[in-house]
Amino acid sequence: MWIECVPNFSEGRRLDVMQAIAEAAASAGARVLGMEGDYDHNRSVLTLAGETATVEEAVLRAAFVAVSQIDLRRHVGTHPRMGAIDVIPFIPLEGTSMADAVQAAQRVGERLGRELGLPVYLYEHAATIPQRRNLADVRRGEFEGLAARMSSDVPDYGPSSPHPSAGAVAVGARRPLIAFNVFLNTTDIQVAQAVAKAVRNSSGGLAGVKALAMDTVSQGQVQVSLNLVDYPKTSLPRAVEMVRQEAQQYGVSVARTELVGLMPVQALLDTARYYLQQPDLTLERILEWQLMEQLDDAGRVDKP
Amino acid sequence: MWIECVPNFSEGRRLDVMQAIAEAAASAGARVLGMEGDYDHNRSVLTLAGETATVEEAVLRAAFVAVSQIDLRRHVGTHPRMGAIDVIPFIPLEGTSMADAVQAAQRVGERLGRELGLPVYLYEHAATIPQRRNLADVRRGEFEGLAARMSSDVPDYGPSSPHPSAGAVAVGARRPLIAFNVFLNTTDIQVAQAVAKAVRNSSGGLAGVKALAMDTVSQGQVQVSLNLVDYPKTSLPRAVEMVRQEAQQYGVSVARTELVGLMPVQALLDTARYYLQQPDLTLERILEWQLMEQLDDAGRVDKP
Repeated sequence: MWIECVPNFSEGRRLDVMQAIAEAAASAGARVLGMEGDYDHNRSVLTLAGETATVEEAVLRAAFVAVSQIDLRRHVGTHPRMGAIDVIPFIPLEGTSMADAVQAAQRVGERLGRELGLPVYLYEHAATIPQRRNLADVRRGEFEGLAARMSSDVPDYGPSSPHPSAGAVAVGARRPLIAFNVFLNTTDIQVAQAVAKAVRNSSGGLAGVKALAMDTVSQGQVQVSLNLVDYPKTSLPRAVEMVRQEAQQYGVSVARTELVGLMPVQALLDTARYYLQQPDLTLERILEWQLMEQLDDAGRVDKP
Repeated sequence: MWIECVPNFSEGRRLDVMQAIAEAAASAGARVLGMEGDYDHNRSVLTLAGETATVEEAVLRAAFVAVSQIDLRRHVGTHPRMGAIDVIPFIPLEGTSMADAVQAAQRVGERLGRELGLPVYLYEHAATIPQRRNLADVRRGEFEGLAARMSSDVPDYGPSSPHPSAGAVAVGARRPLIAFNVFLNTTDIQVAQAVAKAVRNSSGGLAGVKALAMDTVSQGQVQVSLNLVDYPKTSLPRAVEMVRQEAQQYGVSVARTELVGLMPVQALLDTARYYLQQPDLTLERILEWQLMEQLDDAGRVDKP
């Protein structure tokens, strides 16, 4: 019964704080699969996996550190955010169901409200009202708009007013997604905005694609930040190529791309299939993949 | 002490023979990771892994079937070949060395000569003379030229004349390689020949790349058949893109590509790095990869 959890924190610059958050999670016995910060977003993504109860405890401990170390009143970054620990998605792994993930979100939400005094909004599969299914709607107005909005928008757990320094948190259950940034060879944010608008589904683009333009000044390039929420249908390479194509009409090329957190091996395979023009390539043709399965069948533990 | 072995058989059309070969190998307890046939090449590639002694026995059993079922006097195909079981490379896996692979080649070579009456040439890391390091040199003249050539070129094991129906076999030890076919949108074999010549290292192309033009008539397209023998240096996407670039001067595009046998996960990663413009992508960013390592650390056996 393993579950994945990918909490996002509003800290991508102070490495000591990010490390303390990851260590707090690890101290509960959860597996830390990754902790990556982004300077411009001023945000970090922690990837956890383990037994459901262990992961829940790990998120709580990480949240304690975040609430004590991060002050949203002084937070500046390009990524929308409303809390020190901004969003906590639970993702079912093999052996757990979406219902399990929803229950984990409910238990963690209740504890965050009671133990940390954080207002908690359940979102996506854990949402209690339809208007909270979409994370972007839950976060609208961000930290600065919380006080005004909460008077009429009572959270699922915790107080009915924002935590003074840590804001509020969205806790939810969702399918796995790919978070991916594409840097464009221009400093003109309007190009990134036009590309994001063309690519994202809500304004006419690709199904399962969310996109935001980011003014990533420290890099000398603007960024289109993508979420692929249905990558089995709209694959990573297809989204990247649509960004490339849309940017081209402004004479702008793709400088590089960047993965946020982890991605499923399916995305690696989709990318090879697409660019190598080999639509029938499968993981069964990958030596180490086969060996791991075979060695496992034989009761061995050595992995290549 | 696991080893990989990738014997090639001169049969890519009769599925029952290919299946009998794979079953013979499996009957010895070796893990069959793949068995793929190619109609035009009239050739198949069996991928085995297991304990060294088990894999050696498996190859012997597969060779018995091949020698009894395949008659080179009636074999037609585009791929160079000199034997029913044409080439037997042993490849060290983690925990085995190239010296172990050479010894496996020697033991199997000795038994193929003694038990099946096959002339055996040791090649590459197992070669006993420098002229036999390169497989293409060992196979020069193919099956039809064997009798004339063997009078002066005494094999390492077995008789000094060809097996009447099964020819001779090259047995060796080598590093892993990627065998890969690129189909071009033309029926003009001269285009494939020009591209192969430009790409292969022996005539001035990329380091670690071997290439042959193949008249793959059944597909309505010609083929450039590649071996990447040093893919950590000359990666799969780089070789594919050089083929694409060279074909373009003749107005010819890449129709599709095809993997022969298995490829290392490194090639999947190299492909994603190259086309996604993300040179620092690592396997640590792939969810299932991390989970397998983490689950393994925890002493679990479930794999995603």
